[in-house]
Amino acid sequence: MTTTATPVTADDVRDAAALLEGVAHRTPVVRSRTLDGLARRSVFLKCENLQRVGAFKFRGAYNAASRLPVDLLSSGIVTFSSGNHAQAIALAARELGTQAVVVMPEDAPRSKADAVAGYGAEIVTYDRYSGDRAAIGTQLADARGMALIAPYENPAVIAGQGTVALELVQEVGELDALVVPVGGGGLIAGCATIAKAMCPGIRVIGVEPEAGDDTKRSLEAGERVGVPVPRTIADGLAGEIPGELTFSINRRLVDGIALVRDAEILHAMRFAFDRLKLVVEPSGAATLAAVLTRRVDELAQGATRVGVVLSGGNVDTGRFLELMSAGS
Amino acid sequence: MTTTATPVTADDVRDAAALLEGVAHRTPVVRSRTLDGLARRSVFLKCENLQRVGAFKFRGAYNAASRLPVDLLSSGIVTFSSGNHAQAIALAARELGTQAVVVMPEDAPRSKADAVAGYGAEIVTYDRYSGDRAAIGTQLADARGMALIAPYENPAVIAGQGTVALELVQEVGELDALVVPVGGGGLIAGCATIAKAMCPGIRVIGVEPEAGDDTKRSLEAGERVGVPVPRTIADGLAGEIPGELTFSINRRLVDGIALVRDAEILHAMRFAFDRLKLVVEPSGAATLAAVLTRRVDELAQGATRVGVVLSGGNVDTGRFLELMSAGS
Repeated sequence: MTTTATPVTADDVRDAAALLEGVAHRTPVVRSRTLDGLARRSVFLKCENLQRVGAFKFRGAYNAASRLPVDLLSSGIVTFSSGNHAQAIALAARELGTQAVVVMPEDAPRSKADAVAGYGAEIVTYDRYSGDRAAIGTQLADARGMALIAPYENPAVIAGQGTVALELVQEVGELDALVVPVGGGGLIAGCATIAKAMCPGIRVIGVEPEAGDDTKRSLEAGERVGVPVPRTIADGLAGEIPGELTFSINRRLVDGIALVRDAEILHAMRFAFDRLKLVVEPSGAATLAAVLTRRVDELAQGATRVGVVLSGGNVDTGRFLELMSAGS
Repeated sequence: MTTTATPVTADDVRDAAALLEGVAHRTPVVRSRTLDGLARRSVFLKCENLQRVGAFKFRGAYNAASRLPVDLLSSGIVTFSSGNHAQAIALAARELGTQAVVVMPEDAPRSKADAVAGYGAEIVTYDRYSGDRAAIGTQLADARGMALIAPYENPAVIAGQGTVALELVQEVGELDALVVPVGGGGLIAGCATIAKAMCPGIRVIGVEPEAGDDTKRSLEAGERVGVPVPRTIADGLAGEIPGELTFSINRRLVDGIALVRDAEILHAMRFAFDRLKLVVEPSGAATLAAVLTRRVDELAQGATRVGVVLSGGNVDTGRFLELMSAGS
């Protein structure tokens, strides 16, 4: 492992933190003795559900947008996402005084499209059954002379997401393990990069839904392996194949992946509501589910101080009622 | 106003803070630009919903219990409450290695009785239509040789609750206004005591449900005035008459009271869920409702930096679903 070959360094994460200061929230770390008792270790919950746009995604989006050359930034930013990254790019563009164009499937939930439009972004729709969103985004960026900021295949996005772990360790001190959800792998890549620099010996554990275990399979295979389109309530973690860039980092730095079922995620969401008083979306509750089911125990190898990233809170009252009614 | 005549001083609050360090959570302060926009000022939300037992009550209960003479503490603590103070006393007693006895109405919600019992407290029930809970508590304490810690008519309870405002001002700096819910008046009495010492000129604004405006009426009359048993979803704010001790403080230090309707509280709970990603119980959402409806504006007199106490989060998933279904 040579530093020069590393696409994202700990210093990149520190630089991102300096840039995000006063722009992104320094989110709180929440503790619960009930949770500590159930997990049989000290758990530090990093509340990215309380981040701007309701998810960690704002960190990477803003960091990447800010580092564009000025003339490219002023031309605008294109991205493809139907989730939190779309809102994050829309808000980052607004804050930086430029335009965002978001490529979304035409059947994306109305609430998500509304949120993106609410930040002033333009939405371009495509048919998710026939279209390739990355290709459409790239073509659009080329045609309009705009910058493309992909959701995770971007070193500045990864560095931005890493500030989650940086802040957590700065606030609570050394950790033995860090539990991070894995979708495309940007969050865990950034977090692992800085966490392993700040806490030598820390175990970095990813969490995926059972139906979307592409990163687990890929780590085991030693190469990127695809899975069928996952059916899971954790839409943010429903990737079919790890990113090339993120996997090149994660294969070096991630110590293992725990899998959780949708029913366990629902239980964790209810636990977060009833006991932690926090609203956490399905993708954000996957890590908590892995801790509550003690599914991380073997991977954590006796860790006593465990950081857990609650990555987002974008589930509205209506959807929450629906999920809780179905899940009870 | 002479210091010697003051039942609770700013130093009492500082002493309580020193005692609570490492025992109570130093709860986070949450910001939201959406909220700032709607309120047209900078709002700092002090999240006591994230406190142990899910409400600020643990602060006062633990402070008061810790200051009992050792032999009295070891005999046990009696209190009367069907709400968060009951859980707070139960937990404080457990932490201090003594017994708690809680006088609750026999028709108290099962979930609340379970929570109290879960902390190991004994429950003594009474008929709320014929019994006087304070009298029953006093008799019980006398008969068993135990200490009575009332929910708000106790200087050490009030000083403990004041640590909410102390921490808030320590964290965010000087405030122009502080918005605090008013039930018996202990939280606002403690908060006003320390806030006026730390921020000369700060406006301290109470919030009551429209149906339970006993403190507002009392402040206007210049003496304690009772109201009929209030019908409101904000059970923690449904007092019939201010406490003697709390009113003696609040009549000097509280600058005004804003009233909110139950429908506004429900809306604020939904806003807290959807936009802030926080679970707040009805009594805890009253202050947010007062800010969102701009009902505090006149009382805040152009304040630009406003602290708002979210006092508790003890609403479980089932009750939340019920309230949101009814309120939508």
